[in-house]
Amino acid sequence: MRALRYEAGQIQVANVPLPNAGDEALVRVTRSGICNTDLEIVRGYAGFQGTLGHEFVGVVERADDTQLIGHRVVGEINAGCGRCELCRAGDARHCPRRTVLGIVGRDGAHAEFLQLPAVNLLPVPDEVSDERAVFTEPLAAACGILERTQIDEAMRVAVIGDGKLGLLCAQAIKALTRAAVTLVGKHRNKLDIARRREIETVLVEQISDTAARTFDVVVEASGAGDGFALAMNLVRPRGALVLKSTFHGATTLDAARIVVDEISIIGSRCGRFQPALDLLKRNAVDVDSLISEEYALTDGVRAMARARADGVLKVLLRP
Amino acid sequence: MRALRYEAGQIQVANVPLPNAGDEALVRVTRSGICNTDLEIVRGYAGFQGTLGHEFVGVVERADDTQLIGHRVVGEINAGCGRCELCRAGDARHCPRRTVLGIVGRDGAHAEFLQLPAVNLLPVPDEVSDERAVFTEPLAAACGILERTQIDEAMRVAVIGDGKLGLLCAQAIKALTRAAVTLVGKHRNKLDIARRREIETVLVEQISDTAARTFDVVVEASGAGDGFALAMNLVRPRGALVLKSTFHGATTLDAARIVVDEISIIGSRCGRFQPALDLLKRNAVDVDSLISEEYALTDGVRAMARARADGVLKVLLRP
Repeated sequence: MRALRYEAGQIQVANVPLPNAGDEALVRVTRSGICNTDLEIVRGYAGFQGTLGHEFVGVVERADDTQLIGHRVVGEINAGCGRCELCRAGDARHCPRRTVLGIVGRDGAHAEFLQLPAVNLLPVPDEVSDERAVFTEPLAAACGILERTQIDEAMRVAVIGDGKLGLLCAQAIKALTRAAVTLVGKHRNKLDIARRREIETVLVEQISDTAARTFDVVVEASGAGDGFALAMNLVRPRGALVLKSTFHGATTLDAARIVVDEISIIGSRCGRFQPALDLLKRNAVDVDSLISEEYALTDGVRAMARARADGVLKVLLRP
Repeated sequence: MRALRYEAGQIQVANVPLPNAGDEALVRVTRSGICNTDLEIVRGYAGFQGTLGHEFVGVVERADDTQLIGHRVVGEINAGCGRCELCRAGDARHCPRRTVLGIVGRDGAHAEFLQLPAVNLLPVPDEVSDERAVFTEPLAAACGILERTQIDEAMRVAVIGDGKLGLLCAQAIKALTRAAVTLVGKHRNKLDIARRREIETVLVEQISDTAARTFDVVVEASGAGDGFALAMNLVRPRGALVLKSTFHGATTLDAARIVVDEISIIGSRCGRFQPALDLLKRNAVDVDSLISEEYALTDGVRAMARARADGVLKVLLRP
């Protein structure tokens, strides 16, 4: 089968054997999405080598549980050992021996087929098209913010970064909490996607000084050091700064600000898929506007280059 | 009256007018304690100038509420505007216009007299001697950790730093939660104070590699950048790192570790006094062993130098 691979510093579409699957399910991928993490990986992040990609929708071809076969599914990306306390509690996301689809020790989704434990798979409601279902994983990551910090409708929330992740975070928080959400970004056209969903938007250069220290929760989703500095500036005393994306390079920690103003910095990674599927099913989040382009998997190298270009949002691959 | 002052880069015991008090209470100080923050201030931290000190016990000499007069008291150190939402809710600790005893815009406690709003004062139970009562403020800061993160008896907690603050944090957490607490430090004799209170202790150079990523909560109370790095190493995925002390200089933030392992970094500053007074009343915390020396206020400059010396814990002043 064909797969978009990163190996020995090279990105290429290669012919590789079909996944063996074993006691896992075999899924025929119908769409996959390119995430910034894919772009980071080909810069050396996480030291991953193999088939890229962790955002997908597909159809189950083989599974021990025959009821799954033929169903359209999405899949949670962390595959645990199945034996540790965390896995036995049904949450493999922090299993110390986990593999992660297309990120840690497991071939990914930019391929004709992939394998995952059947327990990771969730059926996609008929109302949700493939093009939307492929957003389940990043939207779940956005919803995961609410597993890590409490947000209610009386709160003011700022999201920093108008890329794919920031747009999903702002929309998910708005849809799930009805809080007053402000998206801060650098691109008027991207901000407009959020504005259509009752989200206030502001260009980073137009943030008023009076906004400093006024937000109950600030989500840093820009992946930039200056985004983190802005987030620290916006969060109120005793507020929460949710770190949703890692940075290129190191960032300085202002310990005095954190202690004196009793700020919480809260890391957030993967979310559960069900809340995201529910949002997609009731069309509570605009993901259509986030799709910039779709490429055939065979054009995967070009698609990766395109995904890196300024102004581009989600690039999809079709095997 | 005499007061230990820091002005124009100089520490000295000076003769200054009695506090005017106005509608605040006038307190005759009977003991005050030298905190690391005092030592930081004379290095330029917070830009404070005036009478140093914020840990004290004293007797009310004048107050609008005449019932207070003659009572032995301790006092919460944040004095709010009295009008903002926070102050009206009874908590001035984050009032944006607050002054802070001996730290921000208000003369401090290393003096014969001080003034504070009457609402800040709490009577000291008869069972608590002056020498112990003077620990109310730093012990309240230790108890304040539990306002910022939940700890229960099933948890494993590490405290980094065997100075005054670390010893109080470890003891307060143990006494209030019955969690398994480990104090990590550099001085066998200081660690022994904690060991007598059912706290496990370990020298920093003897920490086993197997301790990495195993603690539910890690409290950084060493005030050193390498203490923060150690805390990051010890905290488990989805655990909490409580920042209890600021650092000299900047510290690098490992954003990838925070995001991937979903760690929370939680700033903690002042706590309410009542829980600390309760601990002192039932003798649940050993503060006697933390007293290194007592000086007359007139020897305040020498006392400050002594407080800075390696191996010294709390230095008290007696007006």
